[in-house]
Amino acid sequence: MKIPDIGDTTAENLEGLLAAAAAAATVWAQRPAAERASALMALADGLDAAADELIPVARAETFLPAGRLAGELTRTTFQLRLFAELLTDGGYLDARIDHADDAWPMGARPDIRRVLEPLGPVLVFAAGNFPFAFSVAGGDTCAALAAGCPVVLKVHPGHPRLSAAVGGVAAASLGSAGAPEGLLQLIYGTQAGRDALVDSRIRAGAFTGSIPGGRALFDLAASRPDPIPFYGELGSVNPVFVTRAAAAARGADIAAGFVASYTLGAGQFCTKPGILLVPADSKMLAALAAAARPEPARLLNEKIQSGYTAALAQLLGHDDVDPLGSLDGALVAPPAPALAATTAGALLGDPEALITECFGPAALVATYRDETELLAVARVLEGQLTATVQGEESDAVAPELIRLLAKKAGRVLWNQWPTGVSVTYAQQHGGPYPATTAPTSTSVGTAGITRFLRPVAYQGLPAHLLPAALRDANPLGIPQRVNGKLA
Amino acid sequence: MKIPDIGDTTAENLEGLLAAAAAAATVWAQRPAAERASALMALADGLDAAADELIPVARAETFLPAGRLAGELTRTTFQLRLFAELLTDGGYLDARIDHADDAWPMGARPDIRRVLEPLGPVLVFAAGNFPFAFSVAGGDTCAALAAGCPVVLKVHPGHPRLSAAVGGVAAASLGSAGAPEGLLQLIYGTQAGRDALVDSRIRAGAFTGSIPGGRALFDLAASRPDPIPFYGELGSVNPVFVTRAAAAARGADIAAGFVASYTLGAGQFCTKPGILLVPADSKMLAALAAAARPEPARLLNEKIQSGYTAALAQLLGHDDVDPLGSLDGALVAPPAPALAATTAGALLGDPEALITECFGPAALVATYRDETELLAVARVLEGQLTATVQGEESDAVAPELIRLLAKKAGRVLWNQWPTGVSVTYAQQHGGPYPATTAPTSTSVGTAGITRFLRPVAYQGLPAHLLPAALRDANPLGIPQRVNGKLA
Repeated sequence: MKIPDIGDTTAENLEGLLAAAAAAATVWAQRPAAERASALMALADGLDAAADELIPVARAETFLPAGRLAGELTRTTFQLRLFAELLTDGGYLDARIDHADDAWPMGARPDIRRVLEPLGPVLVFAAGNFPFAFSVAGGDTCAALAAGCPVVLKVHPGHPRLSAAVGGVAAASLGSAGAPEGLLQLIYGTQAGRDALVDSRIRAGAFTGSIPGGRALFDLAASRPDPIPFYGELGSVNPVFVTRAAAAARGADIAAGFVASYTLGAGQFCTKPGILLVPADSKMLAALAAAARPEPARLLNEKIQSGYTAALAQLLGHDDVDPLGSLDGALVAPPAPALAATTAGALLGDPEALITECFGPAALVATYRDETELLAVARVLEGQLTATVQGEESDAVAPELIRLLAKKAGRVLWNQWPTGVSVTYAQQHGGPYPATTAPTSTSVGTAGITRFLRPVAYQGLPAHLLPAALRDANPLGIPQRVNGKLA
Repeated sequence: MKIPDIGDTTAENLEGLLAAAAAAATVWAQRPAAERASALMALADGLDAAADELIPVARAETFLPAGRLAGELTRTTFQLRLFAELLTDGGYLDARIDHADDAWPMGARPDIRRVLEPLGPVLVFAAGNFPFAFSVAGGDTCAALAAGCPVVLKVHPGHPRLSAAVGGVAAASLGSAGAPEGLLQLIYGTQAGRDALVDSRIRAGAFTGSIPGGRALFDLAASRPDPIPFYGELGSVNPVFVTRAAAAARGADIAAGFVASYTLGAGQFCTKPGILLVPADSKMLAALAAAARPEPARLLNEKIQSGYTAALAQLLGHDDVDPLGSLDGALVAPPAPALAATTAGALLGDPEALITECFGPAALVATYRDETELLAVARVLEGQLTATVQGEESDAVAPELIRLLAKKAGRVLWNQWPTGVSVTYAQQHGGPYPATTAPTSTSVGTAGITRFLRPVAYQGLPAHLLPAALRDANPLGIPQRVNGKLA
């Protein structure tokens, strides 16, 4: 696959790109949903057809195994097709029609109709750890295009050549489906990303990455003369709570499942379980110390490696933390998976230092004496993408623990593991800060489309001037809420 | 009605209030929707029963006429009852159930279920111009309580005694309905409001008021260690575009309707039409200059009066602005309604100075030579709460004008006037910045409840640990989206 040389996007080039995005926004917003759906399908088909060319580029840049990359590409193209289906259904528009009503109790009401419309050009910052699924043609791009918004994609420096290759496939596929020029464009370099984020033509931002990087961009978006929505997914520890009964009933299975989950993809997932709470008097510590772990695996890049080593070293240097099992090879590249041990009491005493993300193949095991400590730890958590309970149905602590965790996390799991985030209708990938900067939204699943939509009401318009979604004749055949009831 | 003396809330009292709000959040979030609905109904009943005591207090503090205040109280209690109905329906929960599916195309998916849950305690800053409907028991309070969130309400300094009186009625009504202590509490003073906004127990903010005040609070919310959603409604000019054909067909009616709308409530509405675009060669300028206007009316308070006088004087001092008709009594208190004249070309040349809110009974009439100027003005607009077209069905300019205005405004009207914002299912009161700080949400209408909700997904939970809304048996009888389809 021929890929051009890549340099940072210049200010002049950025200006042209943003002008093209603004022009595309007008065209794309008016394009019927069925045609937007066709373009998403064409993009999925194009990427699938190019798999044999794209995956080697991804391997060379990210060190991820071919099987993982193939699965990720499948996820990416499935996602595009699922959103195409969503467009055909039309329920996402939340179309509402209130007919005029002279008898409305607070006083006669006029004819008002409301529908969700595209926000305008969206700036998406690609993530490093999912070179397909959270990058050029990934989740936020898919949701924005489906919503009717052009995308300016800030390429992740970890896979620039793959990004260019995917961008080339996208341009060809979208173009062949009749999409406007400028619908999906790539920019390179930190400065171009910052400049784009404060440009008035950009109407929303989306980001997946670190807390410092995401917070800086959130602050920039909020500092604009006209602040815009900024959907940042920043960091999460994804704690797992093992009840006493679960540890007794299936401690060895839980230990094996945990090791498989925290070491999956060399621990480079935002949903990696970083903390495991187990009963102090169980056999789980021994089972974990003895658990077989996968071989060392190269991390995504040198920056991730050095950040990981520093974070792990700092954790191990904490007075209340001890190694759990061997740490041979844990602090070198490629790192061997590592576990450390502490107590629930220590977590409660110093949550800032101990309940913190360590991006890579490491986790902290905390022992508790009494299940009330599980509730106490749940109460001190910051916002999380996920929180997991390994329990038994008869566990008395479970209802309260689940309730507390639902206040802190976007997704609460029972006897499963948080890694592996399926793209479905009910998926929720988000949570209170610092899991995300926008706790009311999701970056995975069909509900993600609402990130890039805003409501508009039309009052008293004749039918021919109304959006098709709001006409009484319902030419699109979509769900409409008429006078408060779904028709 | 006996009302206690009121001083600013002390830091010590604020601490107690916030602790009570946090405690109430746990109780209220778990309260079944039917019981939350009963509490809203009790609050509505309590306020209606106290009307004869509350309205005189409101009159004394705001100078608003009794009829207007009675109508506003009706709106307020209707709103509470409408949200109670919404709770009973349950569609607002957006309940989604995805059953486990081994054949899911991207790979086997687990059982995932998603529902909207309350964000936690909300800080609401009351507005000065609606002492009932956007104050203690107003729209954001209603939406937050319905969503399951306690409210800490920052009292507007323009009507502190009315606020205390409404707060007293609310405490008694909610208490009698079994609501927890601390569900709706009042705080007084700018510093208490700022301190509360940055307290970690507050999970969202809502504000209606000026651009400088709202922006300062938005910045404060965004600067928190853990930023929170901040729903600010700041300012809007609400332009009205009169087509050539409409001016010819019913110019006198349009002039009369415009005068009635911009002078309603002495122009102290956020949807007051502040700019009217009319054809230069029509008779509308003369009709407007000659239009009968209501008598001078006292503004809400001295700060509003002095701000209005200064803004109007600045507008009249602009080189491209002339008086339209008499300005006798326009710059004194109580002010007589005022009109000024300019051209569409001038608006385009200096939009920042001329397309700007002047809160009070004044408006700017801009003449255009060609209807293409209407499109040009629409393109330079900032975000608006409303934009209105007075047109004829055959107007060639209408489709493009409506489309452009829908990009800039939350509500687009046709041959109606923007003042008078009905509370309905399809209402949208919001818009791009500076109309609001959150273009994806509304402060009026049933959709406002989503401001105070966040999605939570549950993966693999046994039925007894799931929220009732997500159980297969659907004990609440609410709409559920099962495997992507509304059941």
